[in-house]
Amino acid sequence: MAAQTDRSALSDHYDIVIVGAGPVGLMLSTCLARWGYKIKHIDNRAEPTPTGRADGIQPRSLDLLRNMGLKSAIMAHQPARVYEVAFWDPPKNGKGIVRTGTWASCPSFIDARYPFTTLLHQGLIERVFIADLKKNAVEVQRPWTITGFTSNEKEDSEYPVTVQIEHVDGTASEKIKAKYLFGGEGGKSFVRDQLKIGVTHKDPIAHVWGVMDGVVNTDFPDIKMKCTIHSEHGSIMVIPREDNMVRLYIQIASSTDADWHPRKTATAEEVQASAKKIFAPYTIEWERLEWFSVYPIGQGISDKYTLDHRVFLGGDACHTHSPKAGQGMNTAFLDAQNLAWKIHAVESGFARRSLLETYEPERKDVAETLLSFDNKYAKLFSQRPPPASTVAAASASATAATSTAGQEENEFIKTFKESCAFTSGYGVFYKANALNWSAAHPAQSHVVHPASTKLVPGRLFMNADVTRVVDANTAHLEQEVPLNGAFRLFVFAGKPSVTAQALRDLASGMARKGSFYTAYTRPDIESVSHHERHNPHSHFFTVCSIFAAKRSSIEISRDLPALLARYRDNVYADDRHAVSAHAKMGLDEERGAVVVVRPDGYTGFVVALAEGSATVDALNQYFGSFCTKKLGEAQSLL
Amino acid sequence: MAAQTDRSALSDHYDIVIVGAGPVGLMLSTCLARWGYKIKHIDNRAEPTPTGRADGIQPRSLDLLRNMGLKSAIMAHQPARVYEVAFWDPPKNGKGIVRTGTWASCPSFIDARYPFTTLLHQGLIERVFIADLKKNAVEVQRPWTITGFTSNEKEDSEYPVTVQIEHVDGTASEKIKAKYLFGGEGGKSFVRDQLKIGVTHKDPIAHVWGVMDGVVNTDFPDIKMKCTIHSEHGSIMVIPREDNMVRLYIQIASSTDADWHPRKTATAEEVQASAKKIFAPYTIEWERLEWFSVYPIGQGISDKYTLDHRVFLGGDACHTHSPKAGQGMNTAFLDAQNLAWKIHAVESGFARRSLLETYEPERKDVAETLLSFDNKYAKLFSQRPPPASTVAAASASATAATSTAGQEENEFIKTFKESCAFTSGYGVFYKANALNWSAAHPAQSHVVHPASTKLVPGRLFMNADVTRVVDANTAHLEQEVPLNGAFRLFVFAGKPSVTAQALRDLASGMARKGSFYTAYTRPDIESVSHHERHNPHSHFFTVCSIFAAKRSSIEISRDLPALLARYRDNVYADDRHAVSAHAKMGLDEERGAVVVVRPDGYTGFVVALAEGSATVDALNQYFGSFCTKKLGEAQSLL
Repeated sequence: MAAQTDRSALSDHYDIVIVGAGPVGLMLSTCLARWGYKIKHIDNRAEPTPTGRADGIQPRSLDLLRNMGLKSAIMAHQPARVYEVAFWDPPKNGKGIVRTGTWASCPSFIDARYPFTTLLHQGLIERVFIADLKKNAVEVQRPWTITGFTSNEKEDSEYPVTVQIEHVDGTASEKIKAKYLFGGEGGKSFVRDQLKIGVTHKDPIAHVWGVMDGVVNTDFPDIKMKCTIHSEHGSIMVIPREDNMVRLYIQIASSTDADWHPRKTATAEEVQASAKKIFAPYTIEWERLEWFSVYPIGQGISDKYTLDHRVFLGGDACHTHSPKAGQGMNTAFLDAQNLAWKIHAVESGFARRSLLETYEPERKDVAETLLSFDNKYAKLFSQRPPPASTVAAASASATAATSTAGQEENEFIKTFKESCAFTSGYGVFYKANALNWSAAHPAQSHVVHPASTKLVPGRLFMNADVTRVVDANTAHLEQEVPLNGAFRLFVFAGKPSVTAQALRDLASGMARKGSFYTAYTRPDIESVSHHERHNPHSHFFTVCSIFAAKRSSIEISRDLPALLARYRDNVYADDRHAVSAHAKMGLDEERGAVVVVRPDGYTGFVVALAEGSATVDALNQYFGSFCTKKLGEAQSLL
Repeated sequence: MAAQTDRSALSDHYDIVIVGAGPVGLMLSTCLARWGYKIKHIDNRAEPTPTGRADGIQPRSLDLLRNMGLKSAIMAHQPARVYEVAFWDPPKNGKGIVRTGTWASCPSFIDARYPFTTLLHQGLIERVFIADLKKNAVEVQRPWTITGFTSNEKEDSEYPVTVQIEHVDGTASEKIKAKYLFGGEGGKSFVRDQLKIGVTHKDPIAHVWGVMDGVVNTDFPDIKMKCTIHSEHGSIMVIPREDNMVRLYIQIASSTDADWHPRKTATAEEVQASAKKIFAPYTIEWERLEWFSVYPIGQGISDKYTLDHRVFLGGDACHTHSPKAGQGMNTAFLDAQNLAWKIHAVESGFARRSLLETYEPERKDVAETLLSFDNKYAKLFSQRPPPASTVAAASASATAATSTAGQEENEFIKTFKESCAFTSGYGVFYKANALNWSAAHPAQSHVVHPASTKLVPGRLFMNADVTRVVDANTAHLEQEVPLNGAFRLFVFAGKPSVTAQALRDLASGMARKGSFYTAYTRPDIESVSHHERHNPHSHFFTVCSIFAAKRSSIEISRDLPALLARYRDNVYADDRHAVSAHAKMGLDEERGAVVVVRPDGYTGFVVALAEGSATVDALNQYFGSFCTKKLGEAQSLL
């Protein structure tokens, strides 16, 4: 938190007011609470989601939850895991449905750490966050709602936002001063409406969907898989759930129907009757109905995510779309994570306020990609299957080993395959800016972005297995630094005999006064415990060193200069696979490289590990492009 | 529980009285509580272990905890994981210590699912069991102790054991009738003493050990590894622990010392001073001392584990030894698990009472192997390192890639390596008896124990990765059946096109009246839910079918007869690795085989999957050798 404030202790002054305790609000709140911010978090529901709503955690989101130490609490609920998607269509000749193919939900080319979708009731997921918030003394105030707000930085540069909130029954109200306001209230966002931010509907076609959670008795063989079923009686999507449950999505109406009405509805019994027809010749009976809902969905995207970089929107308040690809909660998580660390970087004095201007373009671009994908996908899902005549005859050339019917893939399956990378979350990327290096970035020199590297700024850092030197444990390198708000410096140190001088130069350059590293030293550096693993010198950097050598050959105190050796628990041997992590990322196995990874796990910058000052100079240029201090000028040693 | 009793509801009648709530008592109690037994469990301590004591969970024990669904609760405490052991000795020339080699704690040839030792404070482990017991309404009665007992089957064939217990302060007492009494009170067992069962000391040499848990500040590079350090100042064993702790074992005295006295002791300060000398030239300082204890250990083994198969002993009451190899708690777990399922099999009417006679020979044999191993290992550990002259010169022929000093391995390292399989728990095996088939077993025919099989009756069933057919999830086959007290029938079904008739014959043979399978049908079979995964027909059998085929090619309802298809969630494709599970276990990839695995995970019996009745005939013979009913005679269909 900003050190200059003396109003932080006032009971009506908060760092941030968060409206809405769904996935986006809870993720934001949880991150900021861990980093010590004072939070007013409200939700207009009396309790967390009791049934229904979102349920799909995509592979990249599971990585994030693990990075926050929350994965095991999620997995303790024994969620369903979707590894494959099955496609069912009418048979070429005859009635009913047949399986026409299956496809890995997250194929191996994506290289996900957890190549499956995790299915769990949103309420259980919310409770994992709420339990974590409690550890940091943050409680969601319920059922409270926002009734008004203003934002004026000229009047109050420190706490420019004033927020009125009240109990939903009107019996109590509060007026709060805050540095930020976040609207994570879902599609019907009061904050967005007050800001008069419009919503653009990418696809003019709207749909009415029915969704039903329950326990069934069926002889349909793929009831524990994700399925898309097209039949002459309509289409259904099947999603397995925890506790023997299954979710069915069924399209009830489309604005292209002759009798279209957005209020068109259906009873649970009608949807069940429809489902029975679609599943035929298989039988399906409901033993228990947990949740049923009918709702119209238009594809919409908020025109802005913020007006003044004090009041922000995220999650469903910014983007609505069909539930088909299980993206809603996941996009919400990543909106919040993206904003959280940027607010932290600015408020803690590390980054210039303009860093916040990267939130909207980075996340709005992802939402736009999502909507155009969803548009294509939802249309294909809801359309009648192509007539038999257009389906090519069985072809021995089909490369898809899992295509059971041997038919040529139809458009739907093709779209699905192409989109796996995106839906897994691994395909999400951010365009060039100060954080994501490009040829237009101020950091330019002969050591910057070695030609061989396969790491792409703006894309996720790659997953890699390594051996931790101090305890010989197998480690997942991409997970070794927790979501602590710090930039991650991965020093790929190549061969110790080759890089010794370059490592010494790197360390002494980092230790130099005015370097990116020393410019943001912890004020309490003298009293930091020797057990502190990730932030011994600075809250803004965690360093990991990886040698392309056998673990048993590495002596940390001999092979690393003291500054790097201080991170002794973050020193690794790249000796686990025939293809090393160095090689996988296209980094020189002898000479190494330094990779800067953003606090949210995206690659920011890659620089060769060179003797002399070039490597640190480049790092100073990179961080200097968004940090508050002028870096790399003062040359005197610490 | 036996159905014939009408005294089970009496408040002073219990199925079993368990004395001692350490690892052995808690494991027994937890298993039996889950299977519905009425338990009186007492412990003379006012609360679970607060500090110190055992801390090592070996790979096989972690498998067992996972099989009980308790692994994640253990792992939530973030225990240390030991993958490697480092050996430190005096250098050839000069003073101090140098690392002379490292070795995987559980090398890959063992094929462990979790190839590491998990280190966690015993009290935290106990609490995981206690929390599970609570779910089954069993509470450990504390601080209560046993004051006397009698056992007389002639007087009372149903509840032959009478037990007197009282509060440790003597303010209350109870007299209980029970079917069984279990003494798991540790080395000083009241139950063992009352039974006048002697303890044989395999090794006449006794030792006094000091053990110290604490947080240290040191520059010793392997403080997060398991180390054995020999120096001219004495020997230490280093064990990393959760929460930055480390445990040091130091030998204070041996009965071979000139001034030997079993009461010899040392203060924490003396041990720390000793440790500092041994660690030199590295420094070590204590920031916190959590636990310190000095205790004499004699190697002892109880002459009997039971006299009448009503009063049993297990854990430290049966075997004491040095703490060096981290075996105490693990052997205790397996004692209890072995006894638990056998009591259950007998009391539920499945097995003849004589099954209980296998407990002592199976577990005592393991304890004897442990003691002779420990004997050799502890001696080597405590002896001074060999003089430099006897250490062969560095040898390029050393095959151990991790041997850093290139020296020829000394006796200690050799013993260690040879013993990895045993200490991991994977090397433990049981000798031939009714459960563990051999050439002397009554089950004999041309289909029994195919020559190619690599499965060995009495040894653990092998680990294998397969794909679950219904949901395409990756599954660890050996873990797919939880510890539910049932025998596990793994039907390796080879190629569907080849085995179709054999599978039909197997299913119809199993369904025949008087088969091992139908002889023990659930009384409530008509009302069993279709969601019941593991015990739809019988509480004593769970069936898994594994095809040597791609998942996408398998249709459960087409490829399996109804009886086997009923276990639809336990049908797998053996398609995950180039070497299939069939091949790994030496089973015919076309024709398959049936493997019977005991409820505790040990292979019992292997039989070819043949057309006709030979396979079921062999299974009837196998189970008939210890079951209560005559099997396989009646030939009429169900």
